[in-house]
Amino acid sequence: MSWNGFGRVFRFSTWGESHGVAIGALVDGCPPGLALSETDIQAYLDRRRPGASRFTSQRREPDQVRILSGTFEGRTTGSPISLIIDNVDQRSKDYEPGAYRPGHADYVYDAKYGLRDWRGGGRSSARETAARVAAGAVARLVIPEVAIRAYVVELGGDAIDRAEFDDARIDTNPFFCPDVAAAERWALKVDAARKAGSSLGAVVECVATGVPAGWGAPVYAKLDGELASAMMSINAVKGVEVGDGFGASRLRGEENADEMRVGPDGAPQFLSNHAGGVAGGISTGQPIVVRVAFKPTSSILTPVRTIDRAGAETEIVTKGRHDPCVGIRGAPVVEAMMALVVADQKLLHRAQCG
Amino acid sequence: MSWNGFGRVFRFSTWGESHGVAIGALVDGCPPGLALSETDIQAYLDRRRPGASRFTSQRREPDQVRILSGTFEGRTTGSPISLIIDNVDQRSKDYEPGAYRPGHADYVYDAKYGLRDWRGGGRSSARETAARVAAGAVARLVIPEVAIRAYVVELGGDAIDRAEFDDARIDTNPFFCPDVAAAERWALKVDAARKAGSSLGAVVECVATGVPAGWGAPVYAKLDGELASAMMSINAVKGVEVGDGFGASRLRGEENADEMRVGPDGAPQFLSNHAGGVAGGISTGQPIVVRVAFKPTSSILTPVRTIDRAGAETEIVTKGRHDPCVGIRGAPVVEAMMALVVADQKLLHRAQCG
Amino acid sequence: MSWNGFGRVFRFSTWGESHGVAIGALVDGCPPGLALSETDIQAYLDRRRPGASRFTSQRREPDQVRILSGTFEGRTTGSPISLIIDNVDQRSKDYEPGAYRPGHADYVYDAKYGLRDWRGGGRSSARETAARVAAGAVARLVIPEVAIRAYVVELGGDAIDRAEFDDARIDTNPFFCPDVAAAERWALKVDAARKAGSSLGAVVECVATGVPAGWGAPVYAKLDGELASAMMSINAVKGVEVGDGFGASRLRGEENADEMRVGPDGAPQFLSNHAGGVAGGISTGQPIVVRVAFKPTSSILTPVRTIDRAGAETEIVTKGRHDPCVGIRGAPVVEAMMALVVADQKLLHRAQCG
Amino acid sequence: MSWNGFGRVFRFSTWGESHGVAIGALVDGCPPGLALSETDIQAYLDRRRPGASRFTSQRREPDQVRILSGTFEGRTTGSPISLIIDNVDQRSKDYEPGAYRPGHADYVYDAKYGLRDWRGGGRSSARETAARVAAGAVARLVIPEVAIRAYVVELGGDAIDRAEFDDARIDTNPFFCPDVAAAERWALKVDAARKAGSSLGAVVECVATGVPAGWGAPVYAKLDGELASAMMSINAVKGVEVGDGFGASRLRGEENADEMRVGPDGAPQFLSNHAGGVAGGISTGQPIVVRVAFKPTSSILTPVRTIDRAGAETEIVTKGRHDPCVGIRGAPVVEAMMALVVADQKLLHRAQCG
Repeated sequence: MSWNGFGRVFRFSTWGESHGVAIGALVDGCPPGLALSETDIQAYLDRRRPGASRFTSQRREPDQVRILSGTFEGRTTGSPISLIIDNVDQRSKDYEPGAYRPGHADYVYDAKYGLRDWRGGGRSSARETAARVAAGAVARLVIPEVAIRAYVVELGGDAIDRAEFDDARIDTNPFFCPDVAAAERWALKVDAARKAGSSLGAVVECVATGVPAGWGAPVYAKLDGELASAMMSINAVKGVEVGDGFGASRLRGEENADEMRVGPDGAPQFLSNHAGGVAGGISTGQPIVVRVAFKPTSSILTPVRTIDRAGAETEIVTKGRHDPCVGIRGAPVVEAMMALVVADQKLLHRAQCG
Repeated sequence: MSWNGFGRVFRFSTWGESHGVAIGALVDGCPPGLALSETDIQAYLDRRRPGASRFTSQRREPDQVRILSGTFEGRTTGSPISLIIDNVDQRSKDYEPGAYRPGHADYVYDAKYGLRDWRGGGRSSARETAARVAAGAVARLVIPEVAIRAYVVELGGDAIDRAEFDDARIDTNPFFCPDVAAAERWALKVDAARKAGSSLGAVVECVATGVPAGWGAPVYAKLDGELASAMMSINAVKGVEVGDGFGASRLRGEENADEMRVGPDGAPQFLSNHAGGVAGGISTGQPIVVRVAFKPTSSILTPVRTIDRAGAETEIVTKGRHDPCVGIRGAPVVEAMMALVVADQKLLHRAQCG
Repeated sequence: MSWNGFGRVFRFSTWGESHGVAIGALVDGCPPGLALSETDIQAYLDRRRPGASRFTSQRREPDQVRILSGTFEGRTTGSPISLIIDNVDQRSKDYEPGAYRPGHADYVYDAKYGLRDWRGGGRSSARETAARVAAGAVARLVIPEVAIRAYVVELGGDAIDRAEFDDARIDTNPFFCPDVAAAERWALKVDAARKAGSSLGAVVECVATGVPAGWGAPVYAKLDGELASAMMSINAVKGVEVGDGFGASRLRGEENADEMRVGPDGAPQFLSNHAGGVAGGISTGQPIVVRVAFKPTSSILTPVRTIDRAGAETEIVTKGRHDPCVGIRGAPVVEAMMALVVADQKLLHRAQCG
Repeated sequence: MSWNGFGRVFRFSTWGESHGVAIGALVDGCPPGLALSETDIQAYLDRRRPGASRFTSQRREPDQVRILSGTFEGRTTGSPISLIIDNVDQRSKDYEPGAYRPGHADYVYDAKYGLRDWRGGGRSSARETAARVAAGAVARLVIPEVAIRAYVVELGGDAIDRAEFDDARIDTNPFFCPDVAAAERWALKVDAARKAGSSLGAVVECVATGVPAGWGAPVYAKLDGELASAMMSINAVKGVEVGDGFGASRLRGEENADEMRVGPDGAPQFLSNHAGGVAGGISTGQPIVVRVAFKPTSSILTPVRTIDRAGAETEIVTKGRHDPCVGIRGAPVVEAMMALVVADQKLLHRAQCG
């Protein structure tokens, strides 16, 4: 079943295909009275935009967003906010409907729907994530108390040195990398992969600070459960962990315990954050920490074996313009999904608890 | 916001506290005409039941399920199926409302709700997962074509040897472990942890075979997105990955590609399953593979620093009866959540695609 | 598709069959800290209970409710509230699976599900409405500022005299009738219908006062839209109108306009309430007024022509114990549904607007 | 809470304000492979379009729809279908933000949101219903077995003569009136009302034939419950009834019984349709019959008393271009909502029952 909406009270839906006329997002449930202009959204879209460096897709999309509804005199009205981004640099001739590209949704779309829009991957293209980023920009307005930051912590298996973490450097290199030395190594790695017609994976980490204790749900719409589904819904994502994540499974109980003391301000203070800011599905007041694993881009120039729609065996080389490491531009998308989940949970919390 | 339901058309809700009179599950949207008796459900509950070995909690709960509605003459009617399990071995005096147990939801419940049922963790207890297992047993009836199997692949950082994987051994040891030698090592590890008043984490893997290509959703209610949220909603889970998961982020594009050929039966055949049976949110027809990281049990006898409701600093030793490794009994719960997600997606698929 | 839940953030589900072991309701999303005991709920169930007068079904059900979860020390915890009511006076031998009772759901259940629980109507019995009344009692706690009152304004085509409306009399006669003289006429009418093996319809009106201006939604989850669906979901209901309803369609624009002035307290004041307290889907601050049409009870002793499961023509006389006018006991159910909708909208409003 | 979506598996959302740049609908969950072009949708929009006769608003909107996503080579792909209709004939200077127009949502929007788009009513304008009609045109493709027809049966309190009902005449007069003589009377009535600066109400009836027995839900998402909420969500609607509706409350049980016989084709046959094609929330296989009451247009030239945002008493005459009887153009909207509900229920039915 096609399901293009996300969220429970702060909700959004996205639409559009990679090579259609436009893509868009529809945001519903947004509180009224928030100052919102296209500029607020554009800043986030620009961070995700392709073609900004040689390490991302060379498709030239200005990703210019227009607000079609839901604001009046520069403020949200509480009515649905319709956002549209025109597609301008489609190049459909690079694609052909024939053979299934391994790692892509080509085969499963045919299996599910009996037909598909094969131009640039159609609906399954990562181009859809631009609409998420646009919706996420609106979500951020709902949670001004929260700061959200995503960055790449590992690329092609090469991790950053946590001792060299410098928040100020994240936006000064094309990898959203907080470790300058790692960014330099990655430039070489990505260049090499691109030249070899290959691709690389990455791990993105995202931290939300300022979420007070008490947002979330105790059983099924847990804050971490929602984040897991939000992140796993991003193209190319294969894993999600919160706090110490898989690492926590290797700790002993006393090592993993986030002990508590009274802080200098008299408020409860945690002495560690193995939990990643979520306990029992509810925020603890500590930073919310999520890590997201992106597989290597499936579109590669290395020939791989496949079959075509008619069932004949063949080989395929994926033309078109692609990111050699889709995880890089995943960072702004991960941020957007974090904002969308947290905004929804904020509104849900005040629904139940006032 | 309390959210105790899960699913889109095959839906279930659970209710009940650890030390309340009973817990239960309400299953809605189940197809009619399926043979269902309490025995069908009991078999799964028995696998999860505490007290079955010295490696799990010593709370003695028969976990006897009763079907209160939704069946007639041994078949489902299409009406909601109400399942109830009485609590019989509560021992609330082991608990006290005072100090927050680190790693537990105590502090966040108070922060969210301003009050909580502290007896045995109340609603945040893993006892809730018995209700999931009961609901999951119903879900399995909806997908007779699918076989689901979960087992522990790593305990306290000690992984199984994949070469020794023997499906037949999973149910012959108290660890749901497919590697006999590992199970023997784990017995020593868990005993030692228990005696030390400590606890261990684990990684559970779950495989669903028989899901045809085409189930799932392309964007937000993706099969893997739903699985991620389902698994992350289980108590003590901190990470979820599909297929190669985080490992995929360290592969190159050509290594990660699941190449296709024509199988001996003329049907498409994949030469590998890095994707874990899901591409673009939709099943590929290969086994669906998920791995789930459980943190070490938060309830430990080792004293840890904490504060109490009044904000005073103190230490806590968690009494009560607990699993030294909550991940072990997590295996049947993971299976149940897999069944619940796949059943829902089956019905959703036929809703849209007939 | 079976759909046994209602509500968006304050949600409830019901379960159970007329002649099953029990029926119940599961309430989710309830704010924490509300004083709730079984007594609070029982008072409402007692108003709906059968067998209280000769004008209702003679089935003897104590309708004793038990709270199985979601409260602690007499207060709601924010966790799901599981309510159960045992069935004690089933008499299934009065029923037989053979012929379809006209006006009942017998035929359509078979058409939909291929089988059904025919004992007392199974899931389609109005006995399900006891669970709504129980859930509605919880909803009332969420909206202490709102007073809700339902009463019968017409029975068998005989309407009350609005000039004789006396709120104090509603609970002093077996018809929830605010006009004493009408109640006396109705006693004769219902007795006559019962003796003739026939049945009568009724119109119930429900008024909610104290809802402030601003609750509701502007387009699809409108306050009146939710009320319409809530009321139409009650067994035997065939029509719903808000404010002047169908009568409004016969007014001219200037007659229907609810003019506004400044009230003595300086607040906006409406000079009439043709709108029934809802404009554009949002409460105006005036009383919310809904009228609900109940068809005559379908279970009658007068023989009617029908067919049986095998497709053979036959006649049927409906035995069992039935209300000669199901609309009478509909009044407490209508009240409950009003409370459930308004509570949900209150929480939704504060989710979006703080 | 703003809620701009409707439906459970076949879902749609609408967006846009009366005087914004455009309005639109987003349809999700549509089955793949259905032939769909803008022409299919345009035909329905043209029936609702303003300015087609002197009896409707003189706003000149071509209501030209564009499909922005979700189709490929003339067929639906299963992906979301984004529909957009540009606004071209706004005349905002006719409006002013000052005084609240009685009967409109002006006051409640301010009460709810603290601000509103007052140009032409903003989001609360009936212009939104064009988006429903567009979505409804897609829904019709999902249910080719169903024929849906709405028409006006009463205008300004003047009902049609059922004996003169002629389906062929519905589209030959500007009132969607099946009784030619009534249409002639209505022309005079509407002209008179318009000249007097007044307005009239109407009752629209809608019949869906071809729905097989078994679609719908037994308790809360009943077919009639969904229809009630769908219809009540249309601007200016104040009442909904199914089958005999309020009239059924005045019948005796034996009069209201839809007796059954075996039809000439051996299939079950009903001898009447008091139920309006729905029993217990599920379709009976008979025509589904709904009647919808529209209040008189609130925008009138007759001065009425009101207050302004500052709380000062004043009078208002509503300028702008308006329908003297909004119920007339309500007919195509009612049809659309019927199609949207029935399509959703068809998919839900096959989800649960295959």
